[in-house]
Amino acid sequence: MKVWLTMSSSGPTPPFTTLSISHPKESITHVELHRPEKRNAMNKAFWSEMVDCFNQISGDPDCRVVVVSGAGKIFTAGIDLMDMASDVLQPEGDDTARISWNMRKIITKYQETFTVIERTPTSSHILNHISLSYSGALHIVKCLSFMPSQEVDIGLAADVGTLQRLPKVIGSRSLVNELALTARRMYADEAKSSGLVSRVFADKEAMMAGALEMAGEIAGRSPVAVQGTKVNLIYSRDHSVAEGLDYMATWNMAMLQTQDVMKSAQASMEKKSPKTVAFSKL
Amino acid sequence: MKVWLTMSSSGPTPPFTTLSISHPKESITHVELHRPEKRNAMNKAFWSEMVDCFNQISGDPDCRVVVVSGAGKIFTAGIDLMDMASDVLQPEGDDTARISWNMRKIITKYQETFTVIERTPTSSHILNHISLSYSGALHIVKCLSFMPSQEVDIGLAADVGTLQRLPKVIGSRSLVNELALTARRMYADEAKSSGLVSRVFADKEAMMAGALEMAGEIAGRSPVAVQGTKVNLIYSRDHSVAEGLDYMATWNMAMLQTQDVMKSAQASMEKKSPKTVAFSKL
Amino acid sequence: MKVWLTMSSSGPTPPFTTLSISHPKESITHVELHRPEKRNAMNKAFWSEMVDCFNQISGDPDCRVVVVSGAGKIFTAGIDLMDMASDVLQPEGDDTARISWNMRKIITKYQETFTVIERTPTSSHILNHISLSYSGALHIVKCLSFMPSQEVDIGLAADVGTLQRLPKVIGSRSLVNELALTARRMYADEAKSSGLVSRVFADKEAMMAGALEMAGEIAGRSPVAVQGTKVNLIYSRDHSVAEGLDYMATWNMAMLQTQDVMKSAQASMEKKSPKTVAFSKL
Amino acid sequence: MKVWLTMSSSGPTPPFTTLSISHPKESITHVELHRPEKRNAMNKAFWSEMVDCFNQISGDPDCRVVVVSGAGKIFTAGIDLMDMASDVLQPEGDDTARISWNMRKIITKYQETFTVIERTPTSSHILNHISLSYSGALHIVKCLSFMPSQEVDIGLAADVGTLQRLPKVIGSRSLVNELALTARRMYADEAKSSGLVSRVFADKEAMMAGALEMAGEIAGRSPVAVQGTKVNLIYSRDHSVAEGLDYMATWNMAMLQTQDVMKSAQASMEKKSPKTVAFSKL
Amino acid sequence: MKVWLTMSSSGPTPPFTTLSISHPKESITHVELHRPEKRNAMNKAFWSEMVDCFNQISGDPDCRVVVVSGAGKIFTAGIDLMDMASDVLQPEGDDTARISWNMRKIITKYQETFTVIERTPTSSHILNHISLSYSGALHIVKCLSFMPSQEVDIGLAADVGTLQRLPKVIGSRSLVNELALTARRMYADEAKSSGLVSRVFADKEAMMAGALEMAGEIAGRSPVAVQGTKVNLIYSRDHSVAEGLDYMATWNMAMLQTQDVMKSAQASMEKKSPKTVAFSKL
Amino acid sequence: MKVWLTMSSSGPTPPFTTLSISHPKESITHVELHRPEKRNAMNKAFWSEMVDCFNQISGDPDCRVVVVSGAGKIFTAGIDLMDMASDVLQPEGDDTARISWNMRKIITKYQETFTVIERTPTSSHILNHISLSYSGALHIVKCLSFMPSQEVDIGLAADVGTLQRLPKVIGSRSLVNELALTARRMYADEAKSSGLVSRVFADKEAMMAGALEMAGEIAGRSPVAVQGTKVNLIYSRDHSVAEGLDYMATWNMAMLQTQDVMKSAQASMEKKSPKTVAFSKL
Repeated sequence: MKVWLTMSSSGPTPPFTTLSISHPKESITHVELHRPEKRNAMNKAFWSEMVDCFNQISGDPDCRVVVVSGAGKIFTAGIDLMDMASDVLQPEGDDTARISWNMRKIITKYQETFTVIERTPTSSHILNHISLSYSGALHIVKCLSFMPSQEVDIGLAADVGTLQRLPKVIGSRSLVNELALTARRMYADEAKSSGLVSRVFADKEAMMAGALEMAGEIAGRSPVAVQGTKVNLIYSRDHSVAEGLDYMATWNMAMLQTQDVMKSAQASMEKKSPKTVAFSKL
Repeated sequence: MKVWLTMSSSGPTPPFTTLSISHPKESITHVELHRPEKRNAMNKAFWSEMVDCFNQISGDPDCRVVVVSGAGKIFTAGIDLMDMASDVLQPEGDDTARISWNMRKIITKYQETFTVIERTPTSSHILNHISLSYSGALHIVKCLSFMPSQEVDIGLAADVGTLQRLPKVIGSRSLVNELALTARRMYADEAKSSGLVSRVFADKEAMMAGALEMAGEIAGRSPVAVQGTKVNLIYSRDHSVAEGLDYMATWNMAMLQTQDVMKSAQASMEKKSPKTVAFSKL
Repeated sequence: MKVWLTMSSSGPTPPFTTLSISHPKESITHVELHRPEKRNAMNKAFWSEMVDCFNQISGDPDCRVVVVSGAGKIFTAGIDLMDMASDVLQPEGDDTARISWNMRKIITKYQETFTVIERTPTSSHILNHISLSYSGALHIVKCLSFMPSQEVDIGLAADVGTLQRLPKVIGSRSLVNELALTARRMYADEAKSSGLVSRVFADKEAMMAGALEMAGEIAGRSPVAVQGTKVNLIYSRDHSVAEGLDYMATWNMAMLQTQDVMKSAQASMEKKSPKTVAFSKL
Repeated sequence: MKVWLTMSSSGPTPPFTTLSISHPKESITHVELHRPEKRNAMNKAFWSEMVDCFNQISGDPDCRVVVVSGAGKIFTAGIDLMDMASDVLQPEGDDTARISWNMRKIITKYQETFTVIERTPTSSHILNHISLSYSGALHIVKCLSFMPSQEVDIGLAADVGTLQRLPKVIGSRSLVNELALTARRMYADEAKSSGLVSRVFADKEAMMAGALEMAGEIAGRSPVAVQGTKVNLIYSRDHSVAEGLDYMATWNMAMLQTQDVMKSAQASMEKKSPKTVAFSKL
Repeated sequence: MKVWLTMSSSGPTPPFTTLSISHPKESITHVELHRPEKRNAMNKAFWSEMVDCFNQISGDPDCRVVVVSGAGKIFTAGIDLMDMASDVLQPEGDDTARISWNMRKIITKYQETFTVIERTPTSSHILNHISLSYSGALHIVKCLSFMPSQEVDIGLAADVGTLQRLPKVIGSRSLVNELALTARRMYADEAKSSGLVSRVFADKEAMMAGALEMAGEIAGRSPVAVQGTKVNLIYSRDHSVAEGLDYMATWNMAMLQTQDVMKSAQASMEKKSPKTVAFSKL
Repeated sequence: MKVWLTMSSSGPTPPFTTLSISHPKESITHVELHRPEKRNAMNKAFWSEMVDCFNQISGDPDCRVVVVSGAGKIFTAGIDLMDMASDVLQPEGDDTARISWNMRKIITKYQETFTVIERTPTSSHILNHISLSYSGALHIVKCLSFMPSQEVDIGLAADVGTLQRLPKVIGSRSLVNELALTARRMYADEAKSSGLVSRVFADKEAMMAGALEMAGEIAGRSPVAVQGTKVNLIYSRDHSVAEGLDYMATWNMAMLQTQDVMKSAQASMEKKSPKTVAFSKL
């Protein structure tokens, strides 16, 4: 199948060494974690490359949706401890405060890797064949292991955002606590019923096809509306309803002046699908 | 059935042109969006009338519970684009800032339409036979279309509160993102399992009966307790637990002095239902 | 079964009169509400004893996990109205402000009873055989009654934290509203499907065994990681994602320097379970 | 002096009974508290009239600046206790909770009287010949009494906003505490040196002239810039710097597209005063 | 002078070893830091005793105002390094995370020492003869050294609240930054002009007399009004204006029902000073 | 004078075109806005270069203090309108939403220019010979014009942070409002008395000497303490006191373990100045 071939890259895309970038469809970018021999474990290069990659995507008006997945059978084995060892296990220096100062810089840099996905105005979707949703809608083939487990298992909780985002992704606090404290595995059924993921697929091929279809749905809509939706959904998560409404009103006082409203209204009256409308790039 | 007749009005209640107001039971007010021929689409008159209507309800000590539903088959088709066209599609003037300033006033006014439901101390329940819960408990017959879809379809995200409230109504962030970005339809089963609605009924008649029954349950309790619960639930949604506790303590230092506590305690000891107690109006 | 005997105490542990404290396993403390003849209703002594008890636990490096349950068939019947009557039903004095001032002190003291569970760094788990999760993971045998009901029934909403915490424990706002306003009972199935509890057991014995097993899982991990997880999960609940990340980075700049990271990493490389590692007390 | 005559009205402006409204200069509205025989004490009519008055001003594109002062020698003697007596001193009913519920509605209504000044996008300035700045710049002739004193003196602290705004108007917390707790009088010198007021005048006539001059300065500038400044200054007071910057960027993405920028830039290059530019109404 | 003798104690008041407690006037408590031979440096005993002392004061209805000062020439030399050495300079253990965990408990305990002053509903005033205002109004004889200097000088910034409260006590951010970063001394004139203190006295005797006079002013007023003012001033400092107003309305819905309002109003109408009114204890 | 020569550069430091970087003393970096012929107006290059410059400084352990000033007679004339014209005055495209989207990116980038000064852990000081303090302590020769005036004059309020930071730098809200709304000039005396600046000098040479002296004071102290002070002062500005205290405790649980505490304590006991201690780089 063509799409599948497009999405299953043969290696990283230079200058990246851990990411493979492709464009399976118009307006859609596919970012694949690509160190399958290491189960896509996140090494030092990865932290920087994700930020660089998403900064490029942020500035690319041709990209409306990003799909993130992992090469091979699992999304990621988590932090690459071997690679991190010199930074975290054997930090330089002998003054605790100075080691701490440096450690905080490293953690902040690691956190940035996933925060950049939120900050990018482009709609982004993480396809976990293992499991964790950081912020976007996501799809699952089968759950092999639950990511936070690695972190608690090694006494770490280095946390690049799990403890901060998980409670805002899953509704059940009881379940969040249990997962975070016991680091037990979670399988596809529970991931779906708990709301961690919004769809489950039979295998990876089906998942990739489903992801592209959904990405196509989104890419076909007005980019003014889609990006505004992303910005305001994230804003609302972190603010009161009153603050979210005020921000939305201020946002839309400009954005509602777009020609896309007229185009959409016209299509709607003519009973045409919004996908038949040609929206300009953002 | 008498109740049903009462609730199925033959037309708007003057001076309203889009709302039909009735009192199906003691202490219960029924507000029905009443433009069935337009599928209750929200036009200019509607925005003002909802605010006027709820301001009256706020000042009415005889009303303890409000039920909101739509006349005919669906709750509302969403914003009435034809009616809004002159305001939003063809705004007057040629200076972007001045158009924006005016647009912000309009959006703020539209938002007020639903915020007023929250601000009213009276317990309020929206009965969607299509779908969206803005804030209260709600019931569903069957889902025909998902409201936000209209908004994204027309490139709009005008948003009168969906993006702000939906993430605080549904626990699953993945699902919220998917719904908001793809504007796909959602049916009764998913609405129930996702927690968007708390009950599903077989048809509208059953829904109205169920709604009245629940409204009766609430209307029979101490209005001091019920209104205090509403105020504090909304406060808690937008504040930390510590702030919510502080507010509750300050609220109850007065409210616990009500005679309703004694009346309820007495009923409880006599093994009587609280519904047998006659509580004064608030 | 030995464990069961250990956990089923014959009476309160002096100096407590409402709590029975035991140590069913290494590093695990069991706090049992112990007034079974009063269905563990919370009386004046209880409010103080819970705070004293958890303050002791906070200072006990040998305790890594606390399990909270109720003696007999139910967790608690709620506030002991008879006992509270003199404080709340017939307060002294005739000046409303002075009564209010005093009432606020009492409410704040009552709230502290449950807040202390959160503030204790030790991982804490409430086992409800009726139902309500205040903050931790919890397990259910069968639901007889839903605690908030008592409060609304007596016109009270005294609220020692339910309205503040429930909306952050259950994802569905519709359900939270319905439960809080109607005070209807909720049974085990709905408690599980709504995410209020993370597991349901067939009977109390199974629940206690399951709770101890989970407590054992947690007690076997690095206490640095477990306590850090608890502190940061609670912090995240009440802050934006950005604030949670900043706090986590500041927390971990010190905590990642623990020897537990190295110990865990080594076990991980040797394919050993983290439970085989001996972690020092905190 | 013509201006002075214009501003010293002979009586309230119908339908108002406590306010006199005039237009001393183009784009400037003068709102005068007008019950000089009662030292402009705030009675029941006043609370409603201020809100009505500012709602009208908000919708009046011809008004760019509002000046608020008091007829006669002082700004206001504070709350009119005689008039409030039936509401506050002898409330109806005998259930504390129900009296409290009603009292809260009254207080909220009173607070609205001053909040409406902030919410009005029009730049507003309170001229106190006694003293208190609620939000805007203000000017002083001589301080006879300090307003909060009345409130503490009568054991009240009813507070229509003093305790909330004063600490954000005066930099010195020590002084705020002393004033609020002792209710001592404050004179012009201290009001100026403490930053409560930004200018002091020799007498009322000079103050009115100075106020009109400053109002003229503001009215001559771009209303897009002036109103944006007011909205964002108030937003910044209540938010972190990061949030204020985000809001400003979202505000200005529309507002910077105004033609006023070009007009102002041109005037600036031609070394003309911005006051020579004719800016359209907002 | 009698008052002076009363306030200049000959030694600590048992069971305290660092505090001398006296009652120079009705309803006024004087808490004196009493280790003059160590320039009132804050040792381990002090941290606990302050908390115990203020907890007692909180529960004492006879105390309406607290005055805090230091025995001898200066208020306090700051943290007693010698006494803290074993805790902070040579902490036990060799795991950084465990030392950090313990260190955080100590810091939190030290912070509590000053936070307790804010939490006590009783109006509290710190008399610094050196300088720093933690929260209340304060008075200065002469400034010998500025407290934060000690902290930066020893590379510490242990900070028991200076960096958190100073920016909210002094209006000028430039000055706060300069003081905090250079740790330079500040003298009485600058302390007064910058708003750090609200009054300056010629010598300690004058300061104590002035403090008692102000305390007497406050103690003579309605305790309902005074304590409500303190609670709401502190609330306002940490919240937006809108939140502060909401809290005030909820507070006063109960508190305005006090008989003190009527008593005060009557005195006001009879042109009597509020000090002539006998207000009941809180 | 040597220092002066060092600080008065002859041109920009490559690769910068608008900034001149020098190191007048050990551990001190001097960043000079260097387009004196344009009165250091901020052009496009400037926005990027400031961010690059401070990012470098953030990673430079040899730099402990940064001094920022302007070449020639004034600090900066503000935004370089000529240079910005193509971006802001004549933006590309004809869809308002798309122009707005792009405009927001530009504004955010401009804001970053000053936010980066705050984010840099290094202590930073802006020397304005005109006037505005963005965040640090600052010094003034004489005030020629007040920066915000430019912005309001051109109908802009583009605002790169003035409206957000000014109210948190100056205590008097009245003055802030007057300055922001009238854009009037402010001179050295008022800048000092209002707290906008903490010191005033007779001429630029004295200012530069004074700045270097203060920078030297700070550079001589423990960098652990100084950087911790900066981070926590900025955190406190934007959070409640309780949150600030919690953050400080978490910060210092690591930072108090520094050897600098012992070194400083020893110096203090030996009555030596902290400047005689050799502290390691951070």
